Amino acid sequence: MLTFWQDYPEIQEKLEKVQALMAARLKINNEDIQNALQRFTSRGGKMVRPALFFLFAGLVENEKVDEKKLTKIAASLEMLHSATLIHDDIIDDSPLRRGLPSIESQFGKDVAVYTGDFVYTIYFELLIETMNGTEFLSRNAKSMKKILQGELTQMQSAFNKENTARRYMKAISGKTAELLSLSCLEGAYFAGGDRQLQRSARKIGRSIGLAFQVYDDILNFTVGLDEADKPILTDFRQGIYTLPLLLAKEADEAAIMPYLEAPEQLSRDECLQFAALVTDLGGITGSLMIAATLTELALAEIRKLPQSRNREILEEATQILLQRNY
Amino acid sequence: MLTFWQDYPEIQEKLEKVQALMAARLKINNEDIQNALQRFTSRGGKMVRPALFFLFAGLVENEKVDEKKLTKIAASLEMLHSATLIHDDIIDDSPLRRGLPSIESQFGKDVAVYTGDFVYTIYFELLIETMNGTEFLSRNAKSMKKILQGELTQMQSAFNKENTARRYMKAISGKTAELLSLSCLEGAYFAGGDRQLQRSARKIGRSIGLAFQVYDDILNFTVGLDEADKPILTDFRQGIYTLPLLLAKEADEAAIMPYLEAPEQLSRDECLQFAALVTDLGGITGSLMIAATLTELALAEIRKLPQSRNREILEEATQILLQRNY
Repeated sequence: MLTFWQDYPEIQEKLEKVQALMAARLKINNEDIQNALQRFTSRGGKMVRPALFFLFAGLVENEKVDEKKLTKIAASLEMLHSATLIHDDIIDDSPLRRGLPSIESQFGKDVAVYTGDFVYTIYFELLIETMNGTEFLSRNAKSMKKILQGELTQMQSAFNKENTARRYMKAISGKTAELLSLSCLEGAYFAGGDRQLQRSARKIGRSIGLAFQVYDDILNFTVGLDEADKPILTDFRQGIYTLPLLLAKEADEAAIMPYLEAPEQLSRDECLQFAALVTDLGGITGSLMIAATLTELALAEIRKLPQSRNREILEEATQILLQRNY
Repeated sequence: MLTFWQDYPEIQEKLEKVQALMAARLKINNEDIQNALQRFTSRGGKMVRPALFFLFAGLVENEKVDEKKLTKIAASLEMLHSATLIHDDIIDDSPLRRGLPSIESQFGKDVAVYTGDFVYTIYFELLIETMNGTEFLSRNAKSMKKILQGELTQMQSAFNKENTARRYMKAISGKTAELLSLSCLEGAYFAGGDRQLQRSARKIGRSIGLAFQVYDDILNFTVGLDEADKPILTDFRQGIYTLPLLLAKEADEAAIMPYLEAPEQLSRDECLQFAALVTDLGGITGSLMIAATLTELALAEIRKLPQSRNREILEEATQILLQRNY
């Protein structure tokens, strides 16, 4: 659990408090759903959003900071993320999430709809307890709206052969970058950081978010291709046309287009051929370059912040978060 | 449109402003969904929640009241209701809603999930714009939670032969009464009513809500039985066991039980037989008595309020709202 942060015991400890708070809040009048929700949140993945929140909060020297309040706000970010994941799994019919059966596959779409709604409610409760009377309530509402619009944009461009790298960047800007940006901003703000730090936090969060999603989308083209028993190119086969293939399409539209007619019907071999084609046409290299550029943008901005041990930690953590194996 | 309130031009006019505001807020980056949402909300049914809100606001003499703010709050109540309806239709696979195709049947469950989420977001925006810094934000979050728990309770008791009248009342208390109660309370509060009026408003709203739902559930057993081309007993056939049949079951369990084995497989004739059985066993009469008692409770409480023209309107409106043809 949370082994990702084991080299940063301070962050890890705070994230464990977030998990405990989430478990305490996810009380619902159905034991099965409650257990599933608590398992779901206790796996927690890397808890990227709360982690970024605390990394930025750590940049502020403030002895009067209310740690319990920070824990609640960090939990609110993870709750919002969890609610969108639970609803996403309905759309994708995903059997698994974080290595466990998704709420939808365990309990069906009906329960998943209400369970996601329920998690949204806990998210609002946490916001109201910590931000009532501040402008951050409406910032949260705006972010939630952007995230949903990003999801809708992605859903509408599904199987759309006319999708472009530009539209892709817009969709992931809402879908992923918005919430990571908010996480960094809230960390800076609620720890008492000044305007300048808040501005930098938003900017850095946005770059990290974009890079994070591009790397994620590259992985969908490169990982597990030689494991015969696992489904491959899952996003592509659901009509989600991401950066690697969009860049390859820009390089040689005639070669790519035939695969976009009915990706869900392609055989495993055809998928492998397609992945090789995307690679040959520079789709992977191009995406890696874009992700690396976005990472560098984030790191350059981080290095502009006042020198401190916590800034170094943020710099390292950003590199680790965005360093994956290809 | 809104013909239900045509004898109350003051209420009707306010409700039209609510509709206009809702239409203005439901802007989304997909024209089809936006149009569907706007059609959905412009039908508006009776707009029971905003109407109750204004009926209670009307009880307060307050010249400084901010009408625009009241319009926004009334819209927030209808938005919350709409969001739950959109998600309910996913669960019920309802082809129609308010005489129009449901969002789910027009666009599929995927779009319906996000569209409902989107409407929740607009609801929060409206709350934040009007109640930031007040205790009503957390009251709203609590109500939303109760509504969801009510829905979940109902879903879990689907096809449950052990369901009881008591559990039924608990489920509708969350599912329907909670939001009607909140609507009355917010009307009293935001128009500047005192504690006593607020307490009465909550109580009256709760009784109206319970009566409203019981009447609605009676209708499912009595209306359209002679129209051969329409589906009948739709709730029952989806395993939603409501008051009429639960009372009939208390009267003669052995007679009712066989029908509860697999209601979705019953033929039209068997459904008609079942409806007749429920009536013969006093399920309809009993439910009507309970609904009438709840209505009387509401009216008695209304009559305790200080005498005024607007109190008379509230009394009449309550009777009209709860007066249906059986």
